[in-house]
Amino acid sequence: MGLKFELLKKDGKARRGRIFLPHGVVETPTFMPVGTNANVKLMTPRLLNEIKAQIILSNAFHVYLKPGLDIIRHHSGVHNFIGWDKPILTDSGGFQVFSLRKGRKVTEDGVVIRSPLDGSKHFITPELSMEIQYTIGSDIVMAFDYCAEPGVSHEEAERALELTTKWAKRSLKKLREFSDQAIFGIVQGAFFYDLRERSAFEITAMDFDGFAIGGLSVGEEYDITMAMTEFTAPLLPENKPRYFMGAGSPKIIVDLVANGIDIFDSVLPTRVARHGQALTWKGKINIRAAKYKFSREPIDYNCQCYTCSSFTRSYIRHLFDRKEILGQILLTIHNLHFMMELSAKIRDAIENNTFSELRKEVLTYYD
Amino acid sequence: MGLKFELLKKDGKARRGRIFLPHGVVETPTFMPVGTNANVKLMTPRLLNEIKAQIILSNAFHVYLKPGLDIIRHHSGVHNFIGWDKPILTDSGGFQVFSLRKGRKVTEDGVVIRSPLDGSKHFITPELSMEIQYTIGSDIVMAFDYCAEPGVSHEEAERALELTTKWAKRSLKKLREFSDQAIFGIVQGAFFYDLRERSAFEITAMDFDGFAIGGLSVGEEYDITMAMTEFTAPLLPENKPRYFMGAGSPKIIVDLVANGIDIFDSVLPTRVARHGQALTWKGKINIRAAKYKFSREPIDYNCQCYTCSSFTRSYIRHLFDRKEILGQILLTIHNLHFMMELSAKIRDAIENNTFSELRKEVLTYYD
Repeated sequence: MGLKFELLKKDGKARRGRIFLPHGVVETPTFMPVGTNANVKLMTPRLLNEIKAQIILSNAFHVYLKPGLDIIRHHSGVHNFIGWDKPILTDSGGFQVFSLRKGRKVTEDGVVIRSPLDGSKHFITPELSMEIQYTIGSDIVMAFDYCAEPGVSHEEAERALELTTKWAKRSLKKLREFSDQAIFGIVQGAFFYDLRERSAFEITAMDFDGFAIGGLSVGEEYDITMAMTEFTAPLLPENKPRYFMGAGSPKIIVDLVANGIDIFDSVLPTRVARHGQALTWKGKINIRAAKYKFSREPIDYNCQCYTCSSFTRSYIRHLFDRKEILGQILLTIHNLHFMMELSAKIRDAIENNTFSELRKEVLTYYD
Repeated sequence: MGLKFELLKKDGKARRGRIFLPHGVVETPTFMPVGTNANVKLMTPRLLNEIKAQIILSNAFHVYLKPGLDIIRHHSGVHNFIGWDKPILTDSGGFQVFSLRKGRKVTEDGVVIRSPLDGSKHFITPELSMEIQYTIGSDIVMAFDYCAEPGVSHEEAERALELTTKWAKRSLKKLREFSDQAIFGIVQGAFFYDLRERSAFEITAMDFDGFAIGGLSVGEEYDITMAMTEFTAPLLPENKPRYFMGAGSPKIIVDLVANGIDIFDSVLPTRVARHGQALTWKGKINIRAAKYKFSREPIDYNCQCYTCSSFTRSYIRHLFDRKEILGQILLTIHNLHFMMELSAKIRDAIENNTFSELRKEVLTYYD
C-alpha cells in the first residue's frame, strides 16, 4: 500500500500526524492548494515550494478532459507534466458530477456528465475514475463517490449513500487490480445523522488507506457543516488520515482540526486573491480599498512571504487598479503562504498543547 | 552628472560599452524590458533579476496618470514603489503624445493630451515631463520630444523637429534646476535625411548625457528604419550612449547594434509571449500549434531559463489551451531571458570580433 500514517500527538481531538507517500512526507494538519487545470493558478512549482506546500490537489476529471490521458501518459504522469515532484492527491470526479449536475444522468453503473468545455458527453464510472487517477499517478487516489445536493430528502440522500458505498467497493477493487496507490474512501450521507453513521460504517469497513468526509461545505449553513463533521469524524478510524473535502477559510480550518481532521483543500485562498482579498493574522483585507492608496505597509507585518517582504499595500492596490495580473500573482503568493503558515502554526500548537489558544486567536479575526 | 559611459571595444561599427548609473552598471549593448504601469507585465522584480535585466524602462506618462505623483513621492520614487533596485530609464511622455494623438492639441508650449483611462485632459510640457521624471527618480531621463506621424510632409516634419529642439532645450534647462539625473536628447526628423541631419546637429549641440533616435519603428517600412538609423547614428558623438527607442525583434536588434546602437527597448517580447509566441535560437515558434501537443521538448534546448529547464512545450501549450495565465508567465520569462541572452551574446561577440557571424546567424532565423 502506498501510504503510511503516523499519529504523533493529540491535543484534545486535534491530531498532529505524518503521512508518508511516494513523492514525500506530508506533515499534518495541512492545507492543500488546488490545481484545477494541471496548475495552481498563477503559481509556478517553485513558488509552491517556496510557500512550503507539501501536497497539492489535482482535479482528475479536468485533467481527463484536457489535456487528456494520452498526453499525461506521454509524460509518465502528472508530476512530470506539471513539474511538481511532491505529493499529489486527485479527486475522483465525484465533485464534478455534483457541480456539473446540469444535463447529468446517474445510473447504478456510473454517471453521464457533460464537459464544461465543449458539451461533449462522458460516461464516468468508478473504474474509469481509477484508470484516470492511475494514469495521473497521484500519491492519493479518491474513491468515486456520489455527492447529494443540499436539501435532498432522506430517501434521495440514502440512494446517494448506497451508490457511494457500491462505487467505493468497485473503486477499491479496480484500483487494486493494477496499482498499490493509496486510496481514500469518502463518507457521504448529506445532513442526516443516521445516514452519516451508516456511510461511515460501510466505508470504513473497506480497506482504504484514509477517509474523507464529503458532501459538506456545499452551500449549507455553517452550523450544519460543523455538526455533521463533529458527528462523523469520531466514526473514522484513529490510525488513518482524515480529509475534509473543500475547506479553505481560516475559521473552518481551525474548527475542522479541533474535530480531528488532518487535511483539507480549497480554491478559496487563491480565488479571493485574484479578487483582491488578502488573508492576514488580523483578518481579511480588501487591497482595493481607498484607504490603502498611500499605505507603505506590507499586507501583513507578521508575514515572511515574498510579497510582504517586497511590496507595499499601495503598490499592490495600484496593480489591481490598473488590472495588472502581477497584483493577483502577489496576493496568490501571500494567501497560499498564509494558509501554509496557518497549517504550520496549527501543528506547532498541537505539539505544545496550545491549539485551543491558537484557535481562539484565529476565530477572533475570522468569524 | 548622473552618468559615466565607457566605450570598451568596437567590432566594425558595433560598440561594446558600459554605462555607470546611480542604481548600477549597465553593460551595453543591451535590451531593456518595458514596465508600462509600474510593472513589467507578469514579472516580479526577482524574476527580472533572474533573467539578468540590467535596466528597465518605465513609462513616465502612465505613472503620472496612475498611481500619480503623490503616491510615487510618498514612496520616495518608483524604485521603492515597484521594488526594483537596478537602473530605470523613463520615457518623457513624447511617445504617448504620438500614440494617443486622438484629441491631442499641440502648441509651442506643450501638448494637451487625453488620458486613455478616463478621457481627462492633461497639459504636458517639457517642464512637467522633467518634474514627473524627477519625482520618479529614474537613472536616465528622456527629453520631452515631438514625434511626427509616419507619412507627414517635409514641412510638418520640420515643425516637429523644431519643436523637439526647443523642447529639448527647455527639458535640459528645467531638469538642471533641481536635478543632476542623466538626461538623453532625442533626434527626430521623420524619414527625411536633411531633417535627421539638422535634428542630430541641434540636439547633439546640447549638453545631454546620451542620445536617442526617436520617431522610427512607428509603422514605416523596415528599409526606411534602417536607412535612417544608418544615416543618423554616425552623427551622434562616439563618447556617449546611443539609444534606439522601440525595437524588440532579434532582427532589428542585431541590425541596430551593427549600426552602433547601444540600448533599445520594446514591449514586443513580452506582448508576443502573452499570445503564445516564443523566441528561440532557431526562430519563433507558436506554442499553440497542434504539432506541440505531445512535445516533451523544452521551448529551446539551448536555453537555461526557468521555463526551459522545467516545462515541456506540451505543458505550456496545454496552459494556453486552457487560458491559464501561468502559460503567459512562463513564456514571458522565456522571451525576456532570450532577449537578455541575445544581448549578452552580442557583447561577447563584439569583444571577440565575431559580431558579424552572430548577426548572420540571428538573421538566418529572424528575417
